[in-house]
Amino acid sequence: MKLLEDKILKDGKVLAGDILKVDGFLNHRLDTALITELGKDVAKQFAKCGASLILTVESSGISIAFAAGQAMGLPVLVAKKHKSQNISDGVYTASVFSFTHKTENTVLVSKEYLSAADKVLIVDDFLASGNAAMGLLSLVEQAGAEAVGFVAAIEKMHQGGRALIEEKGIKVYSLACIKEMRAGEIIFN
Amino acid sequence: MKLLEDKILKDGKVLAGDILKVDGFLNHRLDTALITELGKDVAKQFAKCGASLILTVESSGISIAFAAGQAMGLPVLVAKKHKSQNISDGVYTASVFSFTHKTENTVLVSKEYLSAADKVLIVDDFLASGNAAMGLLSLVEQAGAEAVGFVAAIEKMHQGGRALIEEKGIKVYSLACIKEMRAGEIIFN
Repeated sequence: MKLLEDKILKDGKVLAGDILKVDGFLNHRLDTALITELGKDVAKQFAKCGASLILTVESSGISIAFAAGQAMGLPVLVAKKHKSQNISDGVYTASVFSFTHKTENTVLVSKEYLSAADKVLIVDDFLASGNAAMGLLSLVEQAGAEAVGFVAAIEKMHQGGRALIEEKGIKVYSLACIKEMRAGEIIFN
Repeated sequence: MKLLEDKILKDGKVLAGDILKVDGFLNHRLDTALITELGKDVAKQFAKCGASLILTVESSGISIAFAAGQAMGLPVLVAKKHKSQNISDGVYTASVFSFTHKTENTVLVSKEYLSAADKVLIVDDFLASGNAAMGLLSLVEQAGAEAVGFVAAIEKMHQGGRALIEEKGIKVYSLACIKEMRAGEIIFN
């Protein structure tokens, strides 16, 4: 999506450790007009997927998932992050390693809001190694629901996450797909 | 706002410890159509406030703040929560006690995105004791910016947070204002 690629080229910063900093428009400060357009693009790409629910994870996936939910007329389920394994019944949980923060988190959703009848479109800010995606897919599988697609605002292709999701037969769509990046240079696919 | 009051009466649950559970539409599962309307109502109430920025705190304030930002054509700055005090330069920080989780958090925003020129409308999901509000106001004050209003989706009036904000001469607006609540009964102001 050219709008997002242009914004990344203009305001994104490549930091040491293969980190792309987009906190001026996507993570910390939210460009509401841009993110609204991202949501519309997701809706266009998945118009016929039959989704009943969008699933994301707190907190930087929320705004994009929300904009997609608005455009598709769907509710958004926000998986919560917990540090501890000490979690009540009534939830599905999965373990996720954060590439950016180098920490292990548990993500969870209430069983009340995710059922076997759901067709779930997963939306997150980044797709890199696929750890977060696998955690969210695990929640969907535990519920006996069907994942109808995975959307990332930004994909870092060289980290291989896409293959893990596509192996499960799930469509992957990234709004901006980065093939290579280093300080001062970002090359899209 | 009647739309939100009706939803709270229909789907909200009063739990022990003076907790109002609204995770079916506002916190965990997001009713995107409802929250979009909340954002429009905020825009109507603060049409003439001259805000340049909306400030909220992760993660349950994000969707409402985002919807308000869309309706007002403003960016949203999301204060991050950290457990530790071990935080880099380049940020404003404040300490906040969470009523729901009984934990102390540090909230922070990058100095890059909040300046003395900003007129800030703060938007959060709840106003109760006012701890989160005071933390966010402290960030605004540290930047030398001006707070032009405080919005809560839901206010629990009996916890006294409103007075703390109004003492600073800041307008407070709650979309649903709860006077009293107990299991099975919620009374709005």
